[in-house]
Amino acid sequence: MVISKNMEALVAGSSVIRKLFEEGLEMAKVVGKENVYDFSLGNPASPVPKKVGEEIARILKEEPLGKVHGYMPNAGFPEVREKVAKSLNARFGMGYDGGDILMSVGAAGGMNCVFRAMLNPGDEVIAFAPFFGEYRNYVANYGGTLTVVPPDIPAFQLNLEALESRITEKTRAVIVNNPNNPSGVIYKEETIQKLGEVLAKAEAKYGRPVYVICDEPYRELAYGGKTVPYIPKYIKNSIYLYSFSKTLSLPGERIGYLALSKEAEGHEELMPALVCANRILGYVNAPSLFQLVVGECLEEPVDLEFYDRNRKLLYEKLTGMGFSLTDPEGAFYFLIKSPVPDEEVFVNKAKEFHILLVNTKSFGLPGYVRLAYCVSYDMIERSLGAFEKLAEAFKLG
Amino acid sequence: MVISKNMEALVAGSSVIRKLFEEGLEMAKVVGKENVYDFSLGNPASPVPKKVGEEIARILKEEPLGKVHGYMPNAGFPEVREKVAKSLNARFGMGYDGGDILMSVGAAGGMNCVFRAMLNPGDEVIAFAPFFGEYRNYVANYGGTLTVVPPDIPAFQLNLEALESRITEKTRAVIVNNPNNPSGVIYKEETIQKLGEVLAKAEAKYGRPVYVICDEPYRELAYGGKTVPYIPKYIKNSIYLYSFSKTLSLPGERIGYLALSKEAEGHEELMPALVCANRILGYVNAPSLFQLVVGECLEEPVDLEFYDRNRKLLYEKLTGMGFSLTDPEGAFYFLIKSPVPDEEVFVNKAKEFHILLVNTKSFGLPGYVRLAYCVSYDMIERSLGAFEKLAEAFKLG
Repeated sequence: MVISKNMEALVAGSSVIRKLFEEGLEMAKVVGKENVYDFSLGNPASPVPKKVGEEIARILKEEPLGKVHGYMPNAGFPEVREKVAKSLNARFGMGYDGGDILMSVGAAGGMNCVFRAMLNPGDEVIAFAPFFGEYRNYVANYGGTLTVVPPDIPAFQLNLEALESRITEKTRAVIVNNPNNPSGVIYKEETIQKLGEVLAKAEAKYGRPVYVICDEPYRELAYGGKTVPYIPKYIKNSIYLYSFSKTLSLPGERIGYLALSKEAEGHEELMPALVCANRILGYVNAPSLFQLVVGECLEEPVDLEFYDRNRKLLYEKLTGMGFSLTDPEGAFYFLIKSPVPDEEVFVNKAKEFHILLVNTKSFGLPGYVRLAYCVSYDMIERSLGAFEKLAEAFKLG
Repeated sequence: MVISKNMEALVAGSSVIRKLFEEGLEMAKVVGKENVYDFSLGNPASPVPKKVGEEIARILKEEPLGKVHGYMPNAGFPEVREKVAKSLNARFGMGYDGGDILMSVGAAGGMNCVFRAMLNPGDEVIAFAPFFGEYRNYVANYGGTLTVVPPDIPAFQLNLEALESRITEKTRAVIVNNPNNPSGVIYKEETIQKLGEVLAKAEAKYGRPVYVICDEPYRELAYGGKTVPYIPKYIKNSIYLYSFSKTLSLPGERIGYLALSKEAEGHEELMPALVCANRILGYVNAPSLFQLVVGECLEEPVDLEFYDRNRKLLYEKLTGMGFSLTDPEGAFYFLIKSPVPDEEVFVNKAKEFHILLVNTKSFGLPGYVRLAYCVSYDMIERSLGAFEKLAEAFKLG
């Protein structure tokens, strides 16, 4: 054994997802690519906004290349951080300045900085099921433990009663992913307010802050005019993480930011620690050209319509066939309740009809599967016959 | 205290370097920017090769944007990994294929992946003084300890006798940075061969591999026709790390790679663990556009002349003034021996003449200062009068 002990299981876990991916490729070889309906991946399919390419060209032409591709302070270009702060202030009535912003290697990089800066071995972080399985690894990277709050079925809001009993003196943070991957649900203002009350009570009891880590790469993907409450507005001990991966369809470029509210307890020690973590984790800084690009695209509208028609079509057709779905209010996912207790039976039956779905056991939610509709409308239309056969197989409708 | 215990000292240490930077800015306000001679930073000053811009433009025009800016396998674009393998094979007679390559967020990102994949808390990694101080943090991120081998003065090769006594049953790897930051020395073939012998002996004794982590961002910066031995050619248990930061003057873009020799012990478990570490540390993948760019610039020649004339001028003039310097064979650094026992006195005196130098205490080498000559020739010429005054102040020459 040359790898570290806690890597073994992780590597084994990785290969499960890889296996699904490879099964899809094998399937495509046999039945043709157009007859495989892959709803397993969260890779944004909407086109990259034109402004991104225009800004790349402009920056490379107008700015000195030594700056564009060079080192800057570890927290990012000061002028980009200022622009991010101003945009958040204008949109959410906050009081950030550039010093409260850290440009990060996506939201995943930002979250690793938070845990590196904050966790002592044995510390606890809480996630609400269903949750993005990588959180468990991000916490484990620094010797912490993820505590899971069971899901709030069927509303898929936050199970706050169960949260209360899970906060201990070792709890340093709770993660809230809004809109949620994999449920597609938006946590309501009322839910956030109650969360704030539960945390305030715990903070008073243990005499230390319990931060909310707001993971919001899907913020702009909210349908039907719904709004996503900006948590730091409600809860002062909040660390806000954002990624441009989904909004600008740039997931490979690894660009996002972190914002720490001025009112957050320990701001003066936490902010330098976050910047230091960004450096020593080897990110050093968020990729430089794309810092400058996103600085010009902060309020570039997302192509919501691209996902909304997928969402409407699938929701209407699948509920019509008798599937039981979460209401897809945001992000580009929803959950389908497995019609049989073992969701793996459902996943495997779907595969027989060349539909690829992800079981949400690793999201802390057995009995469900995730459908990612960040795909072409065309593929959805082609898939409907297969879904009908799947419904028939389980005698739905 | 809201930050983790081991972050306190790190943050305090960070502010020492920041202080120097800020002192330089203050100095510039008083005496003018052109009268401050900043030799403290390792930020490459040579121009970005034209081919980089041409490739960015070509890729954005010819390739689908969903690919250019999108997710790919965590290890990187398969075709880029193939190209890297072929280039290493052609240049160094190796037998890599694409599966042995991980595209990384610079060499710093690659090294963090290595330690995340390999270290259990309490494991040891060895560095040879003088060494890049961040190694200590990269190892500490995962609960490991850095053991320092004292410097081999005055040759600044590897102190292999001292190494032998420092390898324990907990030693997982030794880091070799060739050419070396901060000494500018190139480790000779003979040194590498002897290193291989010492490690083979230790591996036999403890019954487990002790890997060489080859940190080689400065590989192409070798002057006077000198060559840098390719360590994996000599030592099979080698993990090779490369960054395009210096060669292509792209430090802000965070792009590099890692190559694991096929013959390395545990290759079959180590490679998947490295890829998994790249994912769970939140890098997810190296920035996508720049993966494609560097894939076309793998053998783009570095502008060696840009640094070589700086090197020659400074070495000639400073030795002429009576300063004692390491022979700057590679990278863009050399060491000046402090003319007084406390190098901080020397650093502070230099500041009086507006010369900024870094003391190498944090590199594990008290009594010396580092001079980074990745600056404009012009600034060096302007600085010579100040160096003369500094020499006089210590009665050199």
